[in-house]
Amino acid sequence: MRTLEIIGIGMGDPEQLTLQALAALGRLDVVLQLDKGEATRDLIDLRAEILRRYARPGHTVVSVPDPRRDRDDRDYRGAVVDWHRRRVTALEGVLLDRTAPDATAGILVWGDPALYDSTIRVVDGIRGRGRVSLRVRVTPGISAVQALAAAHGVVLHGIGEPVLITTGRRLAEAMAGPVSTVVVMLDGALACRAYTGRGLEILWGAYLGDPRQTLRRGPLDEVVDDIAAVRADLRARHGWIMDTYLLRPPAG
Amino acid sequence: MRTLEIIGIGMGDPEQLTLQALAALGRLDVVLQLDKGEATRDLIDLRAEILRRYARPGHTVVSVPDPRRDRDDRDYRGAVVDWHRRRVTALEGVLLDRTAPDATAGILVWGDPALYDSTIRVVDGIRGRGRVSLRVRVTPGISAVQALAAAHGVVLHGIGEPVLITTGRRLAEAMAGPVSTVVVMLDGALACRAYTGRGLEILWGAYLGDPRQTLRRGPLDEVVDDIAAVRADLRARHGWIMDTYLLRPPAG
Repeated sequence: MRTLEIIGIGMGDPEQLTLQALAALGRLDVVLQLDKGEATRDLIDLRAEILRRYARPGHTVVSVPDPRRDRDDRDYRGAVVDWHRRRVTALEGVLLDRTAPDATAGILVWGDPALYDSTIRVVDGIRGRGRVSLRVRVTPGISAVQALAAAHGVVLHGIGEPVLITTGRRLAEAMAGPVSTVVVMLDGALACRAYTGRGLEILWGAYLGDPRQTLRRGPLDEVVDDIAAVRADLRARHGWIMDTYLLRPPAG
Repeated sequence: MRTLEIIGIGMGDPEQLTLQALAALGRLDVVLQLDKGEATRDLIDLRAEILRRYARPGHTVVSVPDPRRDRDDRDYRGAVVDWHRRRVTALEGVLLDRTAPDATAGILVWGDPALYDSTIRVVDGIRGRGRVSLRVRVTPGISAVQALAAAHGVVLHGIGEPVLITTGRRLAEAMAGPVSTVVVMLDGALACRAYTGRGLEILWGAYLGDPRQTLRRGPLDEVVDDIAAVRADLRARHGWIMDTYLLRPPAG
């Protein structure tokens, strides 16, 4: 039986790795690289640096051909499901052809594998097909949500209150009812711009945990234009951006 | 100026510490111990073990007298705010009297300081009073939410969907509208028992990341009585319990 380690590696700073993640990296015979459209040299280099420091000497790295996702598809969930299905087949093929039947293979995941990452679903899909038997172990990692809260030095929620984690695409739903704190991930278009005039505060961060880390904080109405400008500028400068933000009603 | 490190140490397994947390532990002159009613020997021992392994030799440990919280107070938020205020005064006193003006002091927080922990709010209170000037650094840690998801090997939310993190006390509000995934923390009474008959699935875990880790998973209607029994049994056996669970609508 093969072992598959799904390892959360935090947001970019290798110091965010847990000892558990280091131990898991040290057990890998094969590292499977699902390239998720990381056209960005930075992230590829950073992952290579983590492997150089912490993976077992003599491990091999195998790239998994990454099927393209149809980003224009109007049926978002359908498009994602179809993309997952193609990733299942690709990863299954690589496991069968490129790893020994008793190997320990691993996949490194930015942030935490439990938040807005498809690896666990893809691996469930492989197990569901029954062609490869896998012992799966998941190692949690520091997520963007946590890196954002730590960078700003805040608790995510009001005292005893809930916090909702959602995406830019689903922000409108979160804003339809009474709002407590909302953390927004995967928002390429600053959907929060639609919610000025409500007294909300925004805590924003980009490249969290990275030397380029950039933070902004203030009343949404006053700072959102600055955030939009900084975001566009950083994206142009670095070729990509990964950002997250928290919206909350005024304190008290 | 004093430096105060607020360090998330994960859920109990020292292997959940990040390298960043280790580095922070290594910088401490003084460890401030806010005992938060941890009458439990286990947790005290575990924290001592973490300090023994990773803190700088020669550090001192100072206990901060922990004011009692009025748990019968009907005004929950008011009681917590009052309790925070008394902790502010206690911690401020210890910082002034027991740490050098250029010392690096640290507070170890179970899980992540950004989720259902009062340390950051208490420290904000001290800064607000202006009697001690502090440089504050927060190190995120693996939270119960993440340890739960990793132990069960699941993603927290449906594809592209939100996840709400809340408390047992606020679960009713979360259940009033359409439900996506809800993670419940600080629930001493399994408030989820009120929500059978809706086809929900529960993923439950206690002592996450600890050798005593206990997991249950299944349709809420079928497994909730077993969870209640296991929970009561474990609590009686170990003298305390820390558990968390996730509720979600049936897949698809």
